[in-house]
Amino acid sequence: MAHLFDVDPWVVSTTDLDPQKIRLIESITSIGNGYMGMRGNFEEGYGGDSHLGTYLAGVWYPDPTKVGWWKNGYPLYFGKAINAVNFAAIGIEANGQALDLFTVPFTDLNVSLDMRRGRLTRSFTCEVGGVTLRVNVERFLSIVTQQLSFQKLSIEIVNGQGSLRLIPSIDGAVHNLDSNYGEQFWHEVGRSTAPASLSMRTNPNPFGTPQFTVTAAMASAVVGLDAEGVQSQQLLVADPYTATISPGSVVELVKTVAVVTSRDIDDADHESHAAALLTEASAKDYEQHRAEQESAWAQRWEQADVEIDGDAPAQQGIRFNMFQLLSTYYGEDERLNIGPKGFTGEKYGGATYWDTEAVLVPLYLAVSQPDVVLSLLKYRHRQLPQARHNARQQGLAGALYPMVTFDGVECHNEWEITFEEIHRNGAIAHAIANYTSYTGDRTYLLNEGIEVLTEIARFWADRVHYSERTGQYMIHGVTGPNEYENNVNNNWYTNYLARWVLSYTRDVVLELDEERRATLDISDAECGHWAHIAEHMYLPEDAELGIKVQHDTFLDKELMPVSAIDAADRPLNQHWSWDRILRSCFIKQADVLQGMYMFESEFTPAEIRRNFEFYEPMTVHESSLSPSLHAVLAAAAGLHDKAVELYERSARLDLDNYNNDTEDGLHITSMSGSWLAIVHGFAGMRTGDGLLSFSPFCPERWQRYAFSIRYRGRLLKVQVTPEGSAFELVEGHPLTVQVCGTAYETSIGSPVTVQSQQVKAGS
Amino acid sequence: MAHLFDVDPWVVSTTDLDPQKIRLIESITSIGNGYMGMRGNFEEGYGGDSHLGTYLAGVWYPDPTKVGWWKNGYPLYFGKAINAVNFAAIGIEANGQALDLFTVPFTDLNVSLDMRRGRLTRSFTCEVGGVTLRVNVERFLSIVTQQLSFQKLSIEIVNGQGSLRLIPSIDGAVHNLDSNYGEQFWHEVGRSTAPASLSMRTNPNPFGTPQFTVTAAMASAVVGLDAEGVQSQQLLVADPYTATISPGSVVELVKTVAVVTSRDIDDADHESHAAALLTEASAKDYEQHRAEQESAWAQRWEQADVEIDGDAPAQQGIRFNMFQLLSTYYGEDERLNIGPKGFTGEKYGGATYWDTEAVLVPLYLAVSQPDVVLSLLKYRHRQLPQARHNARQQGLAGALYPMVTFDGVECHNEWEITFEEIHRNGAIAHAIANYTSYTGDRTYLLNEGIEVLTEIARFWADRVHYSERTGQYMIHGVTGPNEYENNVNNNWYTNYLARWVLSYTRDVVLELDEERRATLDISDAECGHWAHIAEHMYLPEDAELGIKVQHDTFLDKELMPVSAIDAADRPLNQHWSWDRILRSCFIKQADVLQGMYMFESEFTPAEIRRNFEFYEPMTVHESSLSPSLHAVLAAAAGLHDKAVELYERSARLDLDNYNNDTEDGLHITSMSGSWLAIVHGFAGMRTGDGLLSFSPFCPERWQRYAFSIRYRGRLLKVQVTPEGSAFELVEGHPLTVQVCGTAYETSIGSPVTVQSQQVKAGS
Repeated sequence: MAHLFDVDPWVVSTTDLDPQKIRLIESITSIGNGYMGMRGNFEEGYGGDSHLGTYLAGVWYPDPTKVGWWKNGYPLYFGKAINAVNFAAIGIEANGQALDLFTVPFTDLNVSLDMRRGRLTRSFTCEVGGVTLRVNVERFLSIVTQQLSFQKLSIEIVNGQGSLRLIPSIDGAVHNLDSNYGEQFWHEVGRSTAPASLSMRTNPNPFGTPQFTVTAAMASAVVGLDAEGVQSQQLLVADPYTATISPGSVVELVKTVAVVTSRDIDDADHESHAAALLTEASAKDYEQHRAEQESAWAQRWEQADVEIDGDAPAQQGIRFNMFQLLSTYYGEDERLNIGPKGFTGEKYGGATYWDTEAVLVPLYLAVSQPDVVLSLLKYRHRQLPQARHNARQQGLAGALYPMVTFDGVECHNEWEITFEEIHRNGAIAHAIANYTSYTGDRTYLLNEGIEVLTEIARFWADRVHYSERTGQYMIHGVTGPNEYENNVNNNWYTNYLARWVLSYTRDVVLELDEERRATLDISDAECGHWAHIAEHMYLPEDAELGIKVQHDTFLDKELMPVSAIDAADRPLNQHWSWDRILRSCFIKQADVLQGMYMFESEFTPAEIRRNFEFYEPMTVHESSLSPSLHAVLAAAAGLHDKAVELYERSARLDLDNYNNDTEDGLHITSMSGSWLAIVHGFAGMRTGDGLLSFSPFCPERWQRYAFSIRYRGRLLKVQVTPEGSAFELVEGHPLTVQVCGTAYETSIGSPVTVQSQQVKAGS
Repeated sequence: MAHLFDVDPWVVSTTDLDPQKIRLIESITSIGNGYMGMRGNFEEGYGGDSHLGTYLAGVWYPDPTKVGWWKNGYPLYFGKAINAVNFAAIGIEANGQALDLFTVPFTDLNVSLDMRRGRLTRSFTCEVGGVTLRVNVERFLSIVTQQLSFQKLSIEIVNGQGSLRLIPSIDGAVHNLDSNYGEQFWHEVGRSTAPASLSMRTNPNPFGTPQFTVTAAMASAVVGLDAEGVQSQQLLVADPYTATISPGSVVELVKTVAVVTSRDIDDADHESHAAALLTEASAKDYEQHRAEQESAWAQRWEQADVEIDGDAPAQQGIRFNMFQLLSTYYGEDERLNIGPKGFTGEKYGGATYWDTEAVLVPLYLAVSQPDVVLSLLKYRHRQLPQARHNARQQGLAGALYPMVTFDGVECHNEWEITFEEIHRNGAIAHAIANYTSYTGDRTYLLNEGIEVLTEIARFWADRVHYSERTGQYMIHGVTGPNEYENNVNNNWYTNYLARWVLSYTRDVVLELDEERRATLDISDAECGHWAHIAEHMYLPEDAELGIKVQHDTFLDKELMPVSAIDAADRPLNQHWSWDRILRSCFIKQADVLQGMYMFESEFTPAEIRRNFEFYEPMTVHESSLSPSLHAVLAAAAGLHDKAVELYERSARLDLDNYNNDTEDGLHITSMSGSWLAIVHGFAGMRTGDGLLSFSPFCPERWQRYAFSIRYRGRLLKVQVTPEGSAFELVEGHPLTVQVCGTAYETSIGSPVTVQSQQVKAGS
């Protein structure tokens, strides 16, 4: 297929500025540093269709819930990641005419996102105000000092003369595209000139959630320009510079911005704190900061990079995904989580979903130090009181983690999701087990983790009901991971997960001493009740078909493969009425298979294959999370070609704009998919029972792929080719690695090489 | 219990004007004439909390749909019965001070709705502008000439002197309480002075539904007053009168208003048409019009009255219900239907629901001439093209009648209702059969009716699916009449009804000649397919319990009676989260029992009793339609005390404001409930197979009840006492009446009297 961006191993670039595609380019060239981020908006502004977006982690606004018919228990507000002050603006005027690539003629344009070095550059030649300018802009958000943004603008005068004016500014007149009632969420609370700064505060709200104050201060260093002095007006602070220009003259402006928020700094100290950050930053020049950024990214890549030989688009795709993920979250702040669009857009509100536990925890466990995932776990522990509140909203005991949240309080407002898609509560528990099993570190589990587990177990114990007729516990009225059905009874995945939570939590509780159990207020009777439920939990299955049944009446449906429906009907959610989707057999994303993915060791490969071959053909994969998870299972079931086919559907989702919605922002949480497909799927990495194992194969079109993983203090480099696989320990004590069932010992300097087996089942 | 209004057989009155209860009083004292209607707002205005409401039948506005998350297939707009021009206003000023009962002192107040004569009166003595006035106001909306409204205001000056000013006006500055985005739905298009008139037009809308123009013109006849001349301004036309007053002087003003709409009259002819109506009206004086109104109501009552001796509140309750029903709809215009709030409020939008076919058709069949129900049937036939559109919206064949509509296009916007509460489509078909069986007239059935039936049958034939595993047809993903569950599979009622539609339609088709079948484009194959589905329709039942099962997994629920839950939790929909309601066993309104009610002859009394005793204890009756239907079934099952208990929950629903929401308007469609409970329940009237039968009992507290019914050209007066029952033919040919299994012949002058049986099962 034709790619929208040039294919290159480390750079995403384009030379084509189609005005229809500005939003798409802005999304793809988003940058972030975990603390803040922004879409690839042009510094000088753009008069055409564009979505200006700057976002600050953890800064949000509760927008009143809007529904047609209110239902008891609905959340009062929907949280929005709010579009923050635009601090990247640098206006450019030549002889009084503003440079706007929507209106002025230009040539030789290049926009490049350098993923290896973590920076965005843009260059072009244009005619403006009778002058020909060669413009270069570079910017990065520091991952060394997260409050800092750096931009360097260099302009060479190719032709013409007169005056040139550069206007770095901080602009507070921004608004959200997705506000329910069109309001602006911010107001100005202060401006200053030395340094030039603007303070904005989110509006008061009727829900009692915190207001946020944000202050952005800027300093500019210039070559060949004279300062006009800081100018300010309501919602805007500017620090313009001018130069008299003639052919051959060159001007430069380096804009440094410090952004502080009331999340970290008292409002009263904002200006001084921001000023201090700028002063500190000024001790180094732009090139030094740039080099530090490059080196910090190199460290991240050392652990997180995936190399693919023989498939340049795949190579670029996986790097883009990893780059955007690591730009969104790197675990520095345990009050934060990972929004589905990160810092790249507003839809889905940048809030926390169960995506984090389901598909991001496994990745971050392997590509970063354990404290990154620990931060994600602590995030949920901090929100235990709110999770209790959510359960009470439904009249239930224990804790219910939210479907969508900023502060732990549920803010999604469709009853079939909010009230019924409760399997999310199991994924939160599972991530604790996953972390514990992967790292071998039981500290979190036995301290904070067990508090979370206990309350989740209590939720399930209250949420099940005992069916007299069958003598079993059931869970009615749920929505499983397959959101193309809802309000079903005994969703196999949900029941299985609830049963696991009850058993696992009980096992952990039984390890605790009396005193600790007393602080958790867990009696033997309660533990016994959990065991009773777990023992008598109803799990629908069909002996004849040899499959687990998605929910009670799934097999009564008219069953047919996706291939039986017209391609013009796809995606279903854009072509079929909702009721038709609901009663069809078609599955949005893994449901039974989600359970087999999470608890793979509890099923035989034959079972997995039978269920995969039953359910996958009915799966439309209309969730961006779906194909990669299926790729992992297909690989586990020995269906290598199917695994590769499914991998390819997720690897370049945004880069190739598969879903035709990337202009709204990137699918950040889905970006783990391609990594999971490669590492857990193609390489078959597993970490159960404290044993690291692989069962690798190399996709036919590839010559080689390689990745590194962090595992219990080691850094292990894995390389797979059609001929075999190699495992090289880069850091840490010697390690036993099991490859296709055989254990090998590896230590630094002693890599293990394993030949491919001749027979590859199913491929 | 303490009654809010004085108990009287024919009058609903109060002498207490609690400012907290003005809205409630306005609702209760609403009047209407099928063409237009209004809440009991005070002519002179009221400065306190009040809901000014005037509504015109068939005049509505499409308000854009407001939902949290858009789903494919959602209607684009929700229709609203719109608050029309206020033509009842008559301002009163004494010495420059406006009379407002919210602020001026008053005594001897009485507000009376005279149900027998169809008029509303109000009288009081008040102090205003230093003068003591005795005020009498009377008004009625003519059921003789529906476009006309009459008001007579008489004021006696008790004390004081100076000037008195009366300001009859037509005021267009009204708005809906329930508009989604707060807009006004109207704008002025014209004003005139001779006669004084105002024309308003609904705003254009983006959905292509018609705009409506409404013109109200007024004339006043006065005694003791001088005309100031018509005055007008934007949205307001007034025709003030003044008098110089002294103690003992009396003034009178009769205001006549003619209201015409673009539904009947071209916009260009509005003024002349309204003027002609006023001229024609002026040929008679107020007292003559009043006498005509009284006599027209007497005719209605002759057919529709229910007399109850020994229970004055019950007597008043049933009359109030019948009065409001007959004020809302009397079949004159087959483009109209019966909104759940009639002309008394805005909530539920005054639109058409399946209530019409479910609970109003049986009543109107008995209390009015057949053409009234024929109008209701023709209403649906007119909307067949829109019903086809609704089915297409869901990707289905045939026709789907809407859950809520003004123009036939579905405008409800909760997927679980809009898309899934499709049983409504069966009720539309059933009403055709009901009419045909009751009247014996097959003309409608064989002409328009079969067109409706065929398209409904096609809908069901497409909506079922064949379950390979069971070899049966199923209907998945529906909401039954019990809206406290939804998206269930194989709702017994829905499946039963669908099966009946297919069989009945096929039977009717088989009677048609070749030519007629060709125009309907029905092949033998299609008929055969309908028969195949009907034969193999899955109907869940439980042999052990001997009951029909509400839906596939209902019996897996935790079953318990309503009595097991805390009274403080009731009503559930105000106390429990929606998910909790959904997974509970508690039933909002009859579901399986709705089917047994509609198809009673297909079940044995023992079956009905078993199902009643299984389901009713789990029923919370949180629909105002529920108790009365259960009362009918309880009576049929011989549970007389239970029948009376259930009757009492619906008989004075609004008069005693049981649901604490009557201030928003009356529950018009529920008003048939008490009539059904008495006539079908206590008197046991049935009309199957062309045979009129009764199995009456007299509730213990009652000494006697009597009612009349229209049946196949006869008017039959029925009277029941503890001792026995009597049947007196008032009009028509001799008639066979079956009473408790024995047939009797009755003719005019030869009433039948039947002694009570000694043994009354279950009471």
